[in-house]
Amino acid sequence: MSNIWTKNFANRTKRMQSSTIRELLKISNLPGVVSFAGGLPSPDVFPVDEFKKACQVVLTDYSHQALQYGTTEGYLPLREMICERSGRYGIHIQPDNVLITNGSQQALDLIGKVFIDAGDKVICEAPTYLGAIQAWKVYGAEFISVETDEHGMIPESLEEKIKQKAKLIYLLPNFQNPMGCTLSEERRHRIIQIAHEHQVPIIEDDPYGQLRFEGEHIPPVLKLDADLRGNDKDDYQGNVIYLSTFSKTLAPGLRLAWAIAPKDVILKLVQAKQGSDLHTATFNQILAHEVCKNDFLDRHIPLIRKVYGARRDLMMDLMDELFPPGVTYIRPEGGLFLWVTTPEQIDTQKLLPVAIANKVAYVPGAPFYPNGGGLNTMRMNFSNASEDGIREGMKRLSLVMKEALV
Amino acid sequence: MSNIWTKNFANRTKRMQSSTIRELLKISNLPGVVSFAGGLPSPDVFPVDEFKKACQVVLTDYSHQALQYGTTEGYLPLREMICERSGRYGIHIQPDNVLITNGSQQALDLIGKVFIDAGDKVICEAPTYLGAIQAWKVYGAEFISVETDEHGMIPESLEEKIKQKAKLIYLLPNFQNPMGCTLSEERRHRIIQIAHEHQVPIIEDDPYGQLRFEGEHIPPVLKLDADLRGNDKDDYQGNVIYLSTFSKTLAPGLRLAWAIAPKDVILKLVQAKQGSDLHTATFNQILAHEVCKNDFLDRHIPLIRKVYGARRDLMMDLMDELFPPGVTYIRPEGGLFLWVTTPEQIDTQKLLPVAIANKVAYVPGAPFYPNGGGLNTMRMNFSNASEDGIREGMKRLSLVMKEALV
Repeated sequence: MSNIWTKNFANRTKRMQSSTIRELLKISNLPGVVSFAGGLPSPDVFPVDEFKKACQVVLTDYSHQALQYGTTEGYLPLREMICERSGRYGIHIQPDNVLITNGSQQALDLIGKVFIDAGDKVICEAPTYLGAIQAWKVYGAEFISVETDEHGMIPESLEEKIKQKAKLIYLLPNFQNPMGCTLSEERRHRIIQIAHEHQVPIIEDDPYGQLRFEGEHIPPVLKLDADLRGNDKDDYQGNVIYLSTFSKTLAPGLRLAWAIAPKDVILKLVQAKQGSDLHTATFNQILAHEVCKNDFLDRHIPLIRKVYGARRDLMMDLMDELFPPGVTYIRPEGGLFLWVTTPEQIDTQKLLPVAIANKVAYVPGAPFYPNGGGLNTMRMNFSNASEDGIREGMKRLSLVMKEALV
Repeated sequence: MSNIWTKNFANRTKRMQSSTIRELLKISNLPGVVSFAGGLPSPDVFPVDEFKKACQVVLTDYSHQALQYGTTEGYLPLREMICERSGRYGIHIQPDNVLITNGSQQALDLIGKVFIDAGDKVICEAPTYLGAIQAWKVYGAEFISVETDEHGMIPESLEEKIKQKAKLIYLLPNFQNPMGCTLSEERRHRIIQIAHEHQVPIIEDDPYGQLRFEGEHIPPVLKLDADLRGNDKDDYQGNVIYLSTFSKTLAPGLRLAWAIAPKDVILKLVQAKQGSDLHTATFNQILAHEVCKNDFLDRHIPLIRKVYGARRDLMMDLMDELFPPGVTYIRPEGGLFLWVTTPEQIDTQKLLPVAIANKVAYVPGAPFYPNGGGLNTMRMNFSNASEDGIREGMKRLSLVMKEALV
């Protein structure tokens, strides 16, 4: 590359890396490969007919607005709908508490832009979501890993680690990416208290909360935080930014998600978004609103739960049946992912090229640990492959593992 | 706001401001106000029927792909189409030279992320595009204003200012926002040479290049730079990043634009975009490709030119007829904007509330000058209002001005 470019790159580019997962997506798209990598929803549950109808309505009744520039905050009826739906889970807010983003990844980026100076510390689960690491490292974040088990972040470990003066606590409470685990209600309360005592805000990232196959719904951290404070019902002024998305309930190809926060925090995120891309596509926002009005998601989400739940069951059954002894996994109550731990002699990063040569792909677990570890772990996605694909892929992967353990 | 948030804001938030223009858009949307503020295309030229047809095709033939996650670089057939169309203007590139972004604003943000460290200097026209100032200030850019007249940036002034060790040169060569002026071919050559001598990359921002109403097309700076170097026809390795958009030829509500650059620069921008929002909406990209294939834009753009050209003519005629003596403007050969200079006793920022009270809006010129100046200037958009609206708005504005000059 010409020196004129490299010599002008900003210092932060040294902290940029291509995401292992996204590079893998390219390989795992090759014909014949069964991919448990990626985190793709199943196209079988995309509501294509509803989109078709809604496109016609939007382009007939709202064309001038839908194709025009819009406000940075987002399409008001969509934000109102998000308020209404959030209210069902005890999150009582107004449209000024909501910012529409291009997928949750943009919300993470905007949070980085607004909160993270170089050298700032972010407390996270270990392992944690790769996209958050990628988004925040660019701004110079350092990560403090808190011990995490099948019930999520361990409060005692948080209490120890938080003494290092952190800027943010990052949590994925439901069906965590990558571990699939869910933070217990007891731990949610405890973590809120610790965050409050140390005055550290919490980022609650909840892309999968709606996709629970079994067990009881646990209230969002934001709701529990509001309860604790006895906030005015419609004016949340607490300590949590809550993120969710239409990517897993509607379709990721629209790039539509949202952040919920105290109004003044939303204002700051809006300023950051103005400079980042002006606003999220108006057409997509009006389209999503048109599809989702009249409670479409209430009818659609049970279908997604059914399909993904069956695939999870199948994958767990095949693990029990086919995987060599010493391989364990966490049973997820929802979401998209199964977290697998192999015997220590397997390095899942080194095994991956062998797996791909045998036409099956997964994501090695190590990159999800910002401070190292997890060499013998892997994340397996069960939402995207068909049931036949899961059967075939699990056969292939079990053979690859057995071979590696000989 | 609770102290827990403010005390955790990053230092760069001090450099964030809400855009005057975008705050104005809200006011100027009030019923009865004729708005020459904003930079909105006319909804009269949105190809609504073509979008309707294309939505059905996309959701029938490409639904699984269009609603799914996609690659960060963008939809390959769309990037191929951009290569083909760029080739007509002498920009010979391959898809690896193209990144699809959420509007050009995102390309500006990604350039800031990749190139600008706090304190870095960016050379720009004065006045220059507000969105670039907003995008880059967040990363700590300082701006060096180069003298600019109705033929664009003045090379002699650049030659003087570039000695201050700049990181980037930012140019809007065609129908500049806000001045409407076009950089002459002679000056393009000279600026390329100066940039090459001092090894400073050029950002060529060209959202309006297709919207020429009169005069001769002038080759893009990137093409002239490639010619100078004798680059291999399809492997551009020069000194320029070129930005353009579908917002002004198709519809801004899709948020679709692109950056053209040497391949290794695109790779770095792709890494930045992965962390920022993973990718641009797949649905929108496939939709735009479906609408634009078979050279639709070749038939559609002449319509836009005709409508906007007539509105520009009308606005200029009314300025000649109605505005008080001492008010001057630059005749734009295309684009969306007329740049007006008033007698010095008028401060256009102070006049704006009076204008809005009289139900007409414009954008004061001062915010477009990163280092001050332009108090008696204003930007007037002629693309969005109807011809009747232009007549009424110009009458109102001329009365407001006359009153102010009494």
